[in-house]
Amino acid sequence: MQKPIIILVRPQLGENIGKVARAMLNFGLDELRIIDPRDGWPNPSAGPSAAGADIVLEKAMVYSDLASAIADCHHIYATTVRKRGITKAVVTPEQAALEIFQTNERNAILFGPERSGLESDDVTVAKSIITVPINPEFGSLNLAQAVILCAYEWSKTQNLAVPSYSEIKPTAPQSELDAMIQQLYDGLETKGYFYPPERTGATQRTLRNILTKAQWNSLEIRTLRGVINALEKSPRKANYQNNQDDKDD
Amino acid sequence: MQKPIIILVRPQLGENIGKVARAMLNFGLDELRIIDPRDGWPNPSAGPSAAGADIVLEKAMVYSDLASAIADCHHIYATTVRKRGITKAVVTPEQAALEIFQTNERNAILFGPERSGLESDDVTVAKSIITVPINPEFGSLNLAQAVILCAYEWSKTQNLAVPSYSEIKPTAPQSELDAMIQQLYDGLETKGYFYPPERTGATQRTLRNILTKAQWNSLEIRTLRGVINALEKSPRKANYQNNQDDKDD
Repeated sequence: MQKPIIILVRPQLGENIGKVARAMLNFGLDELRIIDPRDGWPNPSAGPSAAGADIVLEKAMVYSDLASAIADCHHIYATTVRKRGITKAVVTPEQAALEIFQTNERNAILFGPERSGLESDDVTVAKSIITVPINPEFGSLNLAQAVILCAYEWSKTQNLAVPSYSEIKPTAPQSELDAMIQQLYDGLETKGYFYPPERTGATQRTLRNILTKAQWNSLEIRTLRGVINALEKSPRKANYQNNQDDKDD
Repeated sequence: MQKPIIILVRPQLGENIGKVARAMLNFGLDELRIIDPRDGWPNPSAGPSAAGADIVLEKAMVYSDLASAIADCHHIYATTVRKRGITKAVVTPEQAALEIFQTNERNAILFGPERSGLESDDVTVAKSIITVPINPEFGSLNLAQAVILCAYEWSKTQNLAVPSYSEIKPTAPQSELDAMIQQLYDGLETKGYFYPPERTGATQRTLRNILTKAQWNSLEIRTLRGVINALEKSPRKANYQNNQDDKDD
């Protein structure tokens, strides 16, 4: 696996170079090349906006021209927003990430200056153009955002840090759900809930469907049984009283 | 199709609210809700950083508490970075986008304050947690970046503006490639390139493979034929001279 190299072509603000470094490192990219930065390099504005991604800035290589910056790269992608009448394949960041993942060679992604983007001459060296599919009525991605979307898509090919499901407790065994449902039925029966009696089966099926949907775990079912228990208590007592009263009749 | 609502819970800086609006509109989202913004609302710092996404800010609704902000929503997602010991499903922005797309109901995505993120109480209302898979050694997404990744993933379900391949001219018909290859063979033959003669077939297959790989279009082939032609010219003349010389022998 070879990570893609992010190449900033004639970037303007050091602050944006720092933001790019931050965006990159979030998704595991750490090789940054900078071609002819307007305000020179190193640039004191870059560090603060890198928010800790200093390693990327420290390792960044500076080149005076595009040709030397890409000399060791096998596949070059150029990011552009506007159409340029250049007859090259246009791919999404997602498609590019997959291609990059599938080659085991040096891939580079070019990003143009903040204001103007890549020149046609820069785009010429690329095998493909990366364009982020964007709101046709409002396309306003800044440099670091364009970088982060490409880095993010690449990171997906790496199983970088997939969210863990390990915290989720398993759904309780059916017997526990059944016991809870039975407790509920009993409590409802006591309260005269199932009326008319011939509808009891249908009503219970409806309840079981509802209570099955959540796929509760054991702890949740225990909690719910406590809830049902608590709800039953005083009415049961009341009922018990009523029953006693009835018996007294 | 119902677009997800972006809900900022107690955001701190107006500048970041503007950046969120910009991130949203880039990917077609325009419904923003703001809960208890620290510096009040409207906030004069929001406009400039929205970079033209003013419509999102103008339409933004402000709420004093989470419950009223999500009252009309069917599915709530909470974005968090840190694990919180809460036993909920954790999904990626991609998985969440797919779920949101598949329901035709009101979905909301909660984003916490810049410094601290969502509180446990905020997370409780969510059915799932969205976590961006990130570099385990450097996780530093800011608010607008978290929003843009979620909005971007959602936009993918919309075929918002898929890159167009229409500018790419079709690969030329085989006859045009053949004519070019034949022209090249002829030119090379004239130059005595195919030597020893018994290797000619193998050498030509190698050339054909190389020239087939690029899948050139008609215009490109015409250009290349001009190139070959130009390259041939003076040597051909020279050869012609040589041939004449030979004949003179």
